[in-house]
Amino acid sequence: MEQPATTKQQLIQKLRAMGNKLRIDSVIATTEAGSGHPTSCLSAADLMSAVFFYAMRFDVANPHDAANDRFVLSKGHAAPVLYAAWAEAGAFPVERLKTLRQFGSDLEGHPTPRLPWVDVATGSLGQGLSNGAGMALNAKYLDHIDYRVFVLLGDGEAAEGSVWEAAEFASYYKLDNLIGIIDVNGLGQSQQTMYGHHPEVYQRRFEAFGWHSVSIDGHNMEEIVAALDQAAAVKDRPSMIVASTLKGKGISFAQDLNGWHGKALKKGEETDRALAELRSNDLSTDGLKMTPPAGRTANRVVEAPQTAGLKAGGHYKIGDPVATREAYGEALARLGADNPLVVVLDGDVKNSTFAEKFLKAFPDRYFECFIAEQNMVGAAAGLSAMGKIPFASSFACFLTRAFDQIRMGAISQSNTKLCGSHSGVSIGEDGPSQMALEDLAMMRAIETSTVLYPSDAVSTEHAVRLSAANHGIFYIRTSRPKTPVIYESDEAFEIGKCKVVRSSKDDRITVVAGGVTLFEALKACDELVAQGIGVRVIDIFSVKPVDAAELRKAGQETGGLILTVEDHSLGGTGDAVASAVSSAGIKVDHLFVQELPRSGKPEELLKAYGIDSSAIVSRIKSLI
Amino acid sequence: MEQPATTKQQLIQKLRAMGNKLRIDSVIATTEAGSGHPTSCLSAADLMSAVFFYAMRFDVANPHDAANDRFVLSKGHAAPVLYAAWAEAGAFPVERLKTLRQFGSDLEGHPTPRLPWVDVATGSLGQGLSNGAGMALNAKYLDHIDYRVFVLLGDGEAAEGSVWEAAEFASYYKLDNLIGIIDVNGLGQSQQTMYGHHPEVYQRRFEAFGWHSVSIDGHNMEEIVAALDQAAAVKDRPSMIVASTLKGKGISFAQDLNGWHGKALKKGEETDRALAELRSNDLSTDGLKMTPPAGRTANRVVEAPQTAGLKAGGHYKIGDPVATREAYGEALARLGADNPLVVVLDGDVKNSTFAEKFLKAFPDRYFECFIAEQNMVGAAAGLSAMGKIPFASSFACFLTRAFDQIRMGAISQSNTKLCGSHSGVSIGEDGPSQMALEDLAMMRAIETSTVLYPSDAVSTEHAVRLSAANHGIFYIRTSRPKTPVIYESDEAFEIGKCKVVRSSKDDRITVVAGGVTLFEALKACDELVAQGIGVRVIDIFSVKPVDAAELRKAGQETGGLILTVEDHSLGGTGDAVASAVSSAGIKVDHLFVQELPRSGKPEELLKAYGIDSSAIVSRIKSLI
Repeated sequence: MEQPATTKQQLIQKLRAMGNKLRIDSVIATTEAGSGHPTSCLSAADLMSAVFFYAMRFDVANPHDAANDRFVLSKGHAAPVLYAAWAEAGAFPVERLKTLRQFGSDLEGHPTPRLPWVDVATGSLGQGLSNGAGMALNAKYLDHIDYRVFVLLGDGEAAEGSVWEAAEFASYYKLDNLIGIIDVNGLGQSQQTMYGHHPEVYQRRFEAFGWHSVSIDGHNMEEIVAALDQAAAVKDRPSMIVASTLKGKGISFAQDLNGWHGKALKKGEETDRALAELRSNDLSTDGLKMTPPAGRTANRVVEAPQTAGLKAGGHYKIGDPVATREAYGEALARLGADNPLVVVLDGDVKNSTFAEKFLKAFPDRYFECFIAEQNMVGAAAGLSAMGKIPFASSFACFLTRAFDQIRMGAISQSNTKLCGSHSGVSIGEDGPSQMALEDLAMMRAIETSTVLYPSDAVSTEHAVRLSAANHGIFYIRTSRPKTPVIYESDEAFEIGKCKVVRSSKDDRITVVAGGVTLFEALKACDELVAQGIGVRVIDIFSVKPVDAAELRKAGQETGGLILTVEDHSLGGTGDAVASAVSSAGIKVDHLFVQELPRSGKPEELLKAYGIDSSAIVSRIKSLI
Repeated sequence: MEQPATTKQQLIQKLRAMGNKLRIDSVIATTEAGSGHPTSCLSAADLMSAVFFYAMRFDVANPHDAANDRFVLSKGHAAPVLYAAWAEAGAFPVERLKTLRQFGSDLEGHPTPRLPWVDVATGSLGQGLSNGAGMALNAKYLDHIDYRVFVLLGDGEAAEGSVWEAAEFASYYKLDNLIGIIDVNGLGQSQQTMYGHHPEVYQRRFEAFGWHSVSIDGHNMEEIVAALDQAAAVKDRPSMIVASTLKGKGISFAQDLNGWHGKALKKGEETDRALAELRSNDLSTDGLKMTPPAGRTANRVVEAPQTAGLKAGGHYKIGDPVATREAYGEALARLGADNPLVVVLDGDVKNSTFAEKFLKAFPDRYFECFIAEQNMVGAAAGLSAMGKIPFASSFACFLTRAFDQIRMGAISQSNTKLCGSHSGVSIGEDGPSQMALEDLAMMRAIETSTVLYPSDAVSTEHAVRLSAANHGIFYIRTSRPKTPVIYESDEAFEIGKCKVVRSSKDDRITVVAGGVTLFEALKACDELVAQGIGVRVIDIFSVKPVDAAELRKAGQETGGLILTVEDHSLGGTGDAVASAVSSAGIKVDHLFVQELPRSGKPEELLKAYGIDSSAIVSRIKSLI
C-alpha cells in the first residue's frame, strides 16, 4: 500500500538521519579501537540505513526466526557500520560498539557468527553473494518461505571471479528473493578500483549475467528507497542495485580521497572534527525501527532426529569390488531418505563423484552448481546457515579452487560436508591436472575440520553417516578405482579411530595406509608374512582427528617402527601420523608422491611413484 | 593484402579438410588409448584447423622462438586435437599420436609442458585465459613483440569465475593481442551446460567485460576465418570469438548427444563406423602448413646473469625493528635493479605486502591485478612461460583463493614466486578472515615447491634473492609485526638449511620456530637459561625442503627432544619437523593454533592460542 507522501518524506528524512547516526557510530567505534575501516563504513551508511530500516523484515529479538530476511555484509571490512545498524535496531546497546576489535568482544574486526545476527563470516572479499545465493535458494526451493536476502558488496570485490560465479548461479536459479547492492565508492585499498566512479560498468555486467540492475546515487535516500521498491517487484531474476558513493562520505578531509583505506581516525582533534561535521546533520530518527516479518508462511524443514543419521547401509558383501566414490553416491542417496535436511551440490561431475545417485532419488534437494566450485562451497555455507546439511562434491583436486571458501566456511561455523573424488595418482591416464595430491593437507589445515578417508564401500557409508550426524566442516576423500569391500556392514566406525586390519603378536612394523594404498599394504603384508615377517596394517580412516592412541600402541608393539604409505604429497596421512606419534619416540618413515606425476595406468603410476606393494615390501626390508 | 578469391576458397577448403583430419586423428588416438575425450575434440576441430593453419604465425621447428604466436588449450581435455594439430603441422610424426596417455609418452591425458609446444599445463578448467593474458601482457608491455596469443576455451568452463577475472584483466590492460575462442558445444560432462546452444549469452558477457566479441558457426570455415581476420584488426581490446559447435561433430551416433563426455569409442565396429563417416569428407590438405613469424621485431629481455640475483642488501643493523613484509618490498626493489626479468604482481594490497616499493622503483614492470588472486597467479604462469620471473603477492590467506592455479603452475613447471603477508594470528585485530593459518600446509603440498619462512629483514632479503636465483614455484611467508634484525647482512642463507640461533652444550631441548614465534622462543630461552635450563633455538627458515640433518643433530644433542612452535594450523613447520626427524626416533611436541581464533591484540592472541613465550616455557618444563 502506497504510504501518504508526507509520511514517506518523513520516513526518508529519518532514514537519512539514521545514515548519519551509523556514520557517527562507525567513527566512534573505530577510533576507540584504534584500527578498522571507517571510510568504508561511511560510503555504505545510507544504503545500510535503508536496507535495515526500510526494506528488511526482521525480528531483532529473534535473529534465528525462519521468516526473517537475511543480510550479508560481503564487504566485511565495513563491520562497524553493520554492528552500528544492529545496535541502532536494538539488538544490543549502542555503547557496546566501543568494544569493537577487543579480545573477547564478539564485535570482531570482520563479522563472524559469534554474533547471532551474523549468519556467515565475511572479510575475504567476493564470497557474500554466494552465501546469500545459498540462503535465497533455501527460501525458494527448500523451505518455501518468502524471506528475502540482502547482500551488500564493495566495488573492489566485484573483481573476484567468485562474484560472477554467484551472479550466474543466482540468475540460473531465478533467485528473485536475492537483492544485491554494490557500494561503488571507487577506491580500493591501495588505489582506485578498476572502474573508479563508473557504476554503469557493474550495471552492464550484472545485466549481462541475467540480473535486474539499476544505477543510483547511493547517498540519495529517495533513489535508494525507490531502487529497493523496484527490486522487490522484480520476478524471476535477482536484482543488483549499483550505488555510486563516496568513501569517507561526510568527513571533508577524508571524503573520496586515496590513502584512507583501513585507517582509524586519530583520537582527539581529527576524530572530534569528523564527528562535529557528521553531527551537524539531522539526526532525528524517532520511532525508526526494523519491521518484523509478520504473516510470512514458514515451511522450514524440522531438525531430523540425530539417530536417523547413524544407521549404515548393509548390502555390501566382503570382496565386492566397489569404488569408494560410487559408495559415496549410494550412501548419500540412502542418507537422503533418512534425513530431510541433507541437500547435495556438485560441479558438473556428478556422474564421476556419483552425487547423481542422490539427484535421481531426491531431485528437489539436488542443486547443480556447474563448473564453479567457489560458488558451490559459498552457497553451501549459505544453505548451512539456514539449517541444511549440504554435501558438496567435485574431483578432489578441483576443491582446491574453493580453499578460501572452505576456510571462510570454517570461520562461519558451517556444517558443510565436502567430498573429493579422484584422489591421487591412482586416477591414471587423465594425468596430473586431475590428480588430487594436496587435498588432505588442505583439509587438515582448516581449523575445526574433520577429515575422513575411507578405503572400501562400508567405511565410505560410515564416513557419510558420521559426517551428517556431527556438526562442522567434514571432508571425505574418495578414490577412482574399485577396491574390494573388507568390512562387514555392522563394523563400527568412529571419528578419530583407525582400524587395525592385520595384526599378530610378532609384527615387526606397522604400515599405516588409506584408500588405494591400504590394498597395496595388504598385498605387501601377505608377501612378507609368507616370508615370515609379521606386519601390522592399519587403515587410517580418520585422518583428522587421527587415532594417536592406537597408532602409538601399534608403533610400540611393532618394534617402534611405523611406515606410512599414501597417494598424496606432503601434509597428508604421513604428517598426521608422524606428528601424532612423534612425542612417543616412535620412528616413522614415509612413502608418498614426491614428484610431478604423469599420465599412465593406475598400477604403473603407483609403482613409478613408489607407493605400491613392491615399494612397501622393499622399504620394510630396509627398515627392519 | 587480400588474397585472390579462388585461392582463398581453396585455402578454406583445405582448412575444412584439416578439421576433418584432426577429427580422425583424435578418434584414432583416443580409441587406441581406451580413454579420453574424443567428442570434445570434434567440436573444436574446425576452430583448431583455422587457428593453427590460418591465423597463427609459428615456427614449428623452433617452438620457443620469441616471435612465435602462442596457443593455450584452456579446455585441456581436448588434448588429442591439440596433439593432432601439432603433428599435422610437422612437430612430430602423426603416428606418435597413438602413444596418447601411455606411461612415458609426453602426449599426456591433458597437456603439460613436457611437450615443447605447450607453454602451460591445462586441464583444470578456466585457467587458460589468465595464462594467455599473462603471455599477451608480456608481448605488449615487456618484450614489445607483436606476437599474438590464442586461447581456446570450452563453454562449460566459462562458468569458472577465474575466466571473468581474466576477462576484466585483459580488457583493463587493453590486450588486443589476445584472441579467445569459445567452443560452445552446449554439453558439459554430466548434462547440458548452463546455457546450452545459446552463444549470445557468452557474447553479451564478454562485451560487457570490455571485449570485442562475435558469434559464429564454429563449423563454418568462412565464418571462422572472417572472425579471426576481424579479431586481428581490433585495437585496444581483446577479442572473443563465440563459436556454436556440436560435440562429437561428424559422428552421427554421438553428435550433440549427452552421455558421450570423456568416453573413447569402442575399438572395432564403433570406431570403424565413426572413422568411415569422418573419412567420407574431403581430406585434401596438400601444402597446408603453419606460417612462420617472419619479420617480427623481437625485443625480448635477455637472461640476467645468475650471479646478479645473489647479493643481498646490507643496510640492516642488528636490532632494527623491521616487519618481514616490509623487508620483502625492499628486497624486491633492490632485486629489480639487478635482474630485468623480475616482474611484480599484487592484488590491491601492495601497501600492505609492500610490493609498492617495487612499483615505485620499476613502474613498467609492476602489474596491478586488483582483488582477483586466481587471475594474478594464472597470469604469473603466463609471464613465467615467456621467460619472466614473476613475484606475486597478497595477504597469505587470500593466496588460498589461487590454490588450484598454484597447483597448475607447478604442473606447468612455472617459475612463479609467491609472497603471502599477514600470516597467522599475529596480525591481531582484523580477525580470523585475514589470518593465514593454512598457507604453509598449502604450499608444502605443492609438488616441486620451495617454502621459505624468514624471521627478520636480513633473512627476508635472502629469501627473495634465493627465490629469484632458482627455478620453480617458491613461497615466502611474511609477517605483519615488526621483528628485530638478528642476522648480519653477510650471513649465508641456503635453501634447505635452518639457522641455529641459540646453542650450548648443555641444551636439554631444541625449540624450532619461524617468523614471529622465533622471538617468542628466544624470550622463552632467555627465561629458562636464567633458570639454568639450556635451550637450543632453531630458526627453520626453509620449511621445504626442511633441514632434516641439522634438526636430527640438534634433537640428538638436546636429549632427543624437539618442540615446534608456529603461528599456523596443522601441516606447517610442526609437521615438517616431525616428518623429517621421526625416522630418527626423536620426540617432537607441537605448539600451534588449534582452534578458530578471534580478534584481539597480537600479543593477546599469541598468548590465547598458546604460542607465546609463556606457553613455550611451560611446555618445555613439562617435557624435560
